Amino acid sequence: MKSYTEYLWFNTKKRRQLINITPRIQEAVRKSGVKEGFCLVNAMHITASVFINDDEGGLHQDFEEWLEKLAPYDKAKYRHNLTGEDNADAHLKRTIMGREVVVAITGGKLDFGPWEQIFYGEFDGQRRKRVILKALGE
Amino acid sequence: MKSYTEYLWFNTKKRRQLINITPRIQEAVRKSGVKEGFCLVNAMHITASVFINDDEGGLHQDFEEWLEKLAPYDKAKYRHNLTGEDNADAHLKRTIMGREVVVAITGGKLDFGPWEQIFYGEFDGQRRKRVILKALGE
Amino acid sequence: MKSYTEYLWFNTKKRRQLINITPRIQEAVRKSGVKEGFCLVNAMHITASVFINDDEGGLHQDFEEWLEKLAPYDKAKYRHNLTGEDNADAHLKRTIMGREVVVAITGGKLDFGPWEQIFYGEFDGQRRKRVILKALGE
Repeated sequence: MKSYTEYLWFNTKKRRQLINITPRIQEAVRKSGVKEGFCLVNAMHITASVFINDDEGGLHQDFEEWLEKLAPYDKAKYRHNLTGEDNADAHLKRTIMGREVVVAITGGKLDFGPWEQIFYGEFDGQRRKRVILKALGE
Repeated sequence: MKSYTEYLWFNTKKRRQLINITPRIQEAVRKSGVKEGFCLVNAMHITASVFINDDEGGLHQDFEEWLEKLAPYDKAKYRHNLTGEDNADAHLKRTIMGREVVVAITGGKLDFGPWEQIFYGEFDGQRRKRVILKALGE
Repeated sequence: MKSYTEYLWFNTKKRRQLINITPRIQEAVRKSGVKEGFCLVNAMHITASVFINDDEGGLHQDFEEWLEKLAPYDKAKYRHNLTGEDNADAHLKRTIMGREVVVAITGGKLDFGPWEQIFYGEFDGQRRKRVILKALGE
């Protein structure tokens, strides 16, 4: 049995940003030596997300508008922001997008459909944050 | 350590459809020979979902209406549809429902609560799409 | 390879309640003896959730209000409730919050970011319900 752990650091220029991390995950899976198993990738911060969807710029703008509608920034709206934070909306946005993905590794590669790409979704950025990748298998 | 991979194909008659795939997953877990471990089941397409909920027709209609309210079809509304697609809403609906489930295998069986059932959720169907199942354990 | 399974029972005083279960999960991971691997924690009932977010009371109230807005209780609104239930909203709320988390175990501990805490999210409580924890690794 093999396991492999890697941490990816992000410091986005914008408060909200989507970054395609698929090449970095593929490279880490290669380094792991795992041929058959699972790869867990998750945000280690609770205002960020790791999710799988399409790498299409128009869709990413749709996500931005949609999340802002479902969980608007509106600083005065949330009790969490009484603590001095202004990121309650980021906690909610990340909840919709999800914390983590688990991906099958088959034949040493991410076993993906034709359009699957892994994204880091930042909703309260402009500071250093981490993602963990852990591969487990044989 | 054992691993087992199976692909399930779907081609739904309707654009949006929920299909109970629990019996197929149970059978695959039996074939895997895994007694203690995890079973990952995920949609390989980004406009479809695998999720766990109740097999009750009224609830499925509630899901349909609820998703249409949170992420309406409305073709003209989304930038993604400027690419020639009309399925931006399906990307959003799948985001709410989730891409994947990880289920515990205990004593060779899905370790489920009384009402848990696994569904394939199609939001842009009428074409061939895949789900991957991967069991890992001993 | 090691695997370890534990069931946690809950019977909340309120219909909707969030409970920090991180200490119980940490203790179970310690008992599992798994040093490198994954820990799956999921609700076994389809009107409850296991999720990771911040242990901050204001945010929890924000979650309560936000979920009630996205998926209101409104008993007469849902077809599922024609079966005699009144918990259709709980099925939807749990869908947004998620069924499960998979957490990396590194060096025998939950490999968490600074604010990550695991919660049991009950949306139709005041009766006995279960969560399963399964650790897998070496």
